[in-house]
Amino acid sequence: MASASRTVKTLLVLPSDTNSYGTIFGRQVLALIDEVAAIAAMRHCKQLVVTASIDSVDFLNTARLGDILTVEAFVTWTGNASMEVYAEVVPENRTGEKNLTTTSFVTMVAIDKEGKPVAVPSVIPETDKEKRLHQSAVQRRQLRVERRKRQEGLH
Amino acid sequence: MASASRTVKTLLVLPSDTNSYGTIFGRQVLALIDEVAAIAAMRHCKQLVVTASIDSVDFLNTARLGDILTVEAFVTWTGNASMEVYAEVVPENRTGEKNLTTTSFVTMVAIDKEGKPVAVPSVIPETDKEKRLHQSAVQRRQLRVERRKRQEGLH
Amino acid sequence: MASASRTVKTLLVLPSDTNSYGTIFGRQVLALIDEVAAIAAMRHCKQLVVTASIDSVDFLNTARLGDILTVEAFVTWTGNASMEVYAEVVPENRTGEKNLTTTSFVTMVAIDKEGKPVAVPSVIPETDKEKRLHQSAVQRRQLRVERRKRQEGLH
Amino acid sequence: MASASRTVKTLLVLPSDTNSYGTIFGRQVLALIDEVAAIAAMRHCKQLVVTASIDSVDFLNTARLGDILTVEAFVTWTGNASMEVYAEVVPENRTGEKNLTTTSFVTMVAIDKEGKPVAVPSVIPETDKEKRLHQSAVQRRQLRVERRKRQEGLH
Amino acid sequence: MASASRTVKTLLVLPSDTNSYGTIFGRQVLALIDEVAAIAAMRHCKQLVVTASIDSVDFLNTARLGDILTVEAFVTWTGNASMEVYAEVVPENRTGEKNLTTTSFVTMVAIDKEGKPVAVPSVIPETDKEKRLHQSAVQRRQLRVERRKRQEGLH
Amino acid sequence: MASASRTVKTLLVLPSDTNSYGTIFGRQVLALIDEVAAIAAMRHCKQLVVTASIDSVDFLNTARLGDILTVEAFVTWTGNASMEVYAEVVPENRTGEKNLTTTSFVTMVAIDKEGKPVAVPSVIPETDKEKRLHQSAVQRRQLRVERRKRQEGLH
Ligand SMILES: CC(C)(COP(=O)(O)OP(=O)(O)OC[C@H]1O[C@@H](n2cnc3c(N)ncnc32)[C@H](O)[C@@H]1OP(=O)(O)O)[C@@H](O)C(=O)NCCC(=O)NCCS
Ligand SMILES: CC(C)(COP(=O)(O)OP(=O)(O)OC[C@H]1O[C@@H](n2cnc3c(N)ncnc32)[C@H](O)[C@@H]1OP(=O)(O)O)[C@@H](O)C(=O)NCCC(=O)NCCS
Ligand SMILES: CC(C)(COP(=O)(O)OP(=O)(O)OC[C@H]1O[C@@H](n2cnc3c(N)ncnc32)[C@H](O)[C@@H]1OP(=O)(O)O)[C@@H](O)C(=O)NCCC(=O)NCCS
Ligand SMILES: CC(C)(COP(=O)(O)OP(=O)(O)OC[C@H]1O[C@@H](n2cnc3c(N)ncnc32)[C@H](O)[C@@H]1OP(=O)(O)O)[C@@H](O)C(=O)NCCC(=O)NCCS
Repeated sequence: MASASRTVKTLLVLPSDTNSYGTIFGRQVLALIDEVAAIAAMRHCKQLVVTASIDSVDFLNTARLGDILTVEAFVTWTGNASMEVYAEVVPENRTGEKNLTTTSFVTMVAIDKEGKPVAVPSVIPETDKEKRLHQSAVQRRQLRVERRKRQEGLH
Repeated sequence: MASASRTVKTLLVLPSDTNSYGTIFGRQVLALIDEVAAIAAMRHCKQLVVTASIDSVDFLNTARLGDILTVEAFVTWTGNASMEVYAEVVPENRTGEKNLTTTSFVTMVAIDKEGKPVAVPSVIPETDKEKRLHQSAVQRRQLRVERRKRQEGLH
Repeated sequence: MASASRTVKTLLVLPSDTNSYGTIFGRQVLALIDEVAAIAAMRHCKQLVVTASIDSVDFLNTARLGDILTVEAFVTWTGNASMEVYAEVVPENRTGEKNLTTTSFVTMVAIDKEGKPVAVPSVIPETDKEKRLHQSAVQRRQLRVERRKRQEGLH
Repeated sequence: MASASRTVKTLLVLPSDTNSYGTIFGRQVLALIDEVAAIAAMRHCKQLVVTASIDSVDFLNTARLGDILTVEAFVTWTGNASMEVYAEVVPENRTGEKNLTTTSFVTMVAIDKEGKPVAVPSVIPETDKEKRLHQSAVQRRQLRVERRKRQEGLH
Repeated sequence: MASASRTVKTLLVLPSDTNSYGTIFGRQVLALIDEVAAIAAMRHCKQLVVTASIDSVDFLNTARLGDILTVEAFVTWTGNASMEVYAEVVPENRTGEKNLTTTSFVTMVAIDKEGKPVAVPSVIPETDKEKRLHQSAVQRRQLRVERRKRQEGLH
Repeated sequence: MASASRTVKTLLVLPSDTNSYGTIFGRQVLALIDEVAAIAAMRHCKQLVVTASIDSVDFLNTARLGDILTVEAFVTWTGNASMEVYAEVVPENRTGEKNLTTTSFVTMVAIDKEGKPVAVPSVIPETDKEKRLHQSAVQRRQLRVERRKRQEGLH
């Protein structure tokens, strides 16, 4: 079940997370997405996982010093050894107002002790959002393959 | 000049950077790419910058505990307030053998004290690699616009 | 509502959190309890908060390197400026087995910019657990007063 | 001897230790108490130790950004495998003025490589304070047993 | 009085402090010396201080993962705005055996809000060790002046 | 070749690196020098290294919050198991203005798994600066031996 992998991390934005104008660093948001996505994937497959790729990330809104940040992730789709994980980051200011900062899709791969990919159980989407993201996953996987080809051409 | 923005960060992969099999976390690599790209952009525009987006990142090879990691970035292309920065991450093991782990394009935007975008000077590519990446930048910018539209459709 | 303050933080137990036998440090657990309790209290009162006290904490079970740790907290009772927050810490090993490590009650006080206590809205318990903890809170508050007197005698 | 376990840690309160009003986080104080208490216990028993419990902690005064913080701990009483450790935290501001922030009793248990409790040598109190805390320790141990029972009733 | 500045910091050597053979990094020892020396100087002059220089440091013995490390410092000599601080680092292994790792002399300068040097009170040495180090300080100051000249020649 | 060991680390000066006046701590600069010097030495000898000593360091200029700091190091001279490494630290402010903060010579020793010194390949200086520092190295080594003797006399 997708809900079994659902993982939440809430934290306060501290001075060490922000630049001198009190705006959170992109790197903190990226690190959080990868961390929470990895835990969601581990919960799904009960194996150690590594990050195979992260889709492009657009930083729509910013989070500021003193905000409460919530990062939430769950497994949307599974291949043989790979899992697509959806993550979203929502900052909440002192008055409780929420904003969607960014969303991302991370591909995690289950590995054994030698670092070789191992098969994972299939995910069963339940909520509407889970079902919608599950259906669109095949298309995203396709785009990832094309993008890798295209990038090779551009380098 | 692109070379004026060129920024290098070398570091040792420490236990806190790795999982229990001694493999570096994806989040460490992402955080390094964003940090070095931000410094490269600051060197180019002499302003504070924020991360607007990061293109998809594929982790082709891993870096391990004890490896020396080199992250290198430079500005490839400039818009009005935005700069495209190319970053590459290269681990080097004890015997000196090198491997390309990953490359990425980060878009940084110069901002003033109110967080408003401000114009940046144009970049002038010099080496062959800089010229190649400068030319392909327009196409990547196009893909970013399409990708954002497509992502909106998929959410 | 108590549910409006409910805060969850999930994390992986890393080498820097553990002693040389791979057992989590008590200080990590205490720090997590205080951090998540503070966010829960901030969400309830929409003010800055400081920790006034923490009740005794018994570490019944341990968490180990590689475990997934979940810390959950919510406001159980409110005085004038103070809030009692209940926190529990649950480690989950690779196979998904869960264990209750510890629970604690933290008292948080809402403060203004001068650090003076300010009134907080009353909490309304909803679930059975919230109602049970709300009812027993008065007794715990009484015990805290006695304990402070007793401690003064013992020093 | 109690004096053989006496452990002092002095540090500067840094931005990362404080909230946006420059007041130290409760979690930093708790973490310091546990860390210094653990070293005191290790010095007494020459074994690895784990934290079994911490008594309630009241934060009487606060420490601020730029203060010098001194945490001091020593073993007050020993059971079979357990040691009671007394810890106190004293902030000192720029002008040298000192304040007692908080005191606490931590119970540490000596363990072997399998995590099983192992016997520790008896502590011999020397100074007046050490003797006083040694005598009152039996009563505190009694209160801890009662408190655990009472807490079970309240959960 | 020199004793008024005496500052002690005790800590456990953790995985993040050591290389892959479990030996502490020289940088950790240097950072600790500077930190404890700065607190000792602040305690003497009741001002903010900056590090003006550190004399050469020889790492005679190493400290290992799991060792208890004690860093101790006190002001040995005062000029107008500068203070010479003596620091020593002593690791202690599980069995309680101690070893002198290194000693160093750090010169701290008291500064005002504009970063300008300000006069400090004179130090009065008391113990034999304090008196000995106070007497030899003039000679070390002389060597520092010569060394700066010599170094300029060698660069 | 000396150039094969050349190592660069660029970083932003963050709040956690600075005192309350926004000036970098001496300890951060010392830690960076040792870290970059260690990587340069590892690149030269392809072995694990430990810091044997660091020559005196004078902090001529300061670096400030928000500055870009560049630390650069290379091997200047090799003995049997020891390597002399030259390191320099250059802060660069928002407008691109550079200042030499400090330079230092660190002696690194290559070790095997038992921590025993092992022979390193000879370094071949190439640039003018490398040649100059290579020639003056013998004199510095002589001064180090004398200094150790002298220090023994002063303690
Ligand atoms: C991810 C990794 C284990 C894949 O190994 P591989 O030898 O390519 O294995 P395979 O070709 O059998 O691919 C295994 C799965 O990973 C997927 N995959 C591989 N590279 C991918 C990428 N860049 N993006 C998305 N999925 C990817 C494959 O599609 C396949 O999926 P499936 O099993 O569901 O069909 C390997 O590339 C690796 O170790 N990379 C480094 C990971 C890492 O350390 N990340 C952290 C920072 S560097
Ligand atoms: C502490 C621990 C080792 C005790 O193990 P146990 O199987 O209960 O052992 P015992 O019942 O034989 O008790 C051993 C000693 O610990 C004491 N003890 C156990 N729980 C205690 C508690 N909550 N508070 C105070 N003392 C406690 C017992 O009184 C006994 O003391 P004594 O030997 O001096 O008579 C075990 O509970 C544990 O591993 N807890 C987790 C510790 C930890 O990892 N802490 C860090 C964060 S989770
Ligand atoms: C240290 C500093 C304040 C001295 O300022 P200055 O303009 O040279 O001041 P002065 O020449 O009046 O010297 C003031 C005192 O510092 C001493 N001093 C200056 N440089 C020194 C050095 N390298 N080593 C030892 N003492 C030094 C002087 O001897 C003098 O001592 P006295 O007052 O006891 O006679 C200045 O060099 C500085 O800000 N340096 C950077 C400090 C820093 O930020 N360190 C952290 C890492 S970069
Ligand atoms: C450095 C260390 C390995 C040297 O071991 P040793 O038994 O003294 O070995 P040797 O006498 O054979 O010396 C080996 C080399 O180190 C050099 N060396 C030793 N101490 C030195 C010092 N204080 N400064 C500079 N060079 C030194 C010797 O000159 C010799 O150089 P060479 O081989 O090029 O001729 C040993 O002292 C040690 O482990 N120290 C602790 C290092 C450490 O852990 N540092 C981090 C923080 S404590």
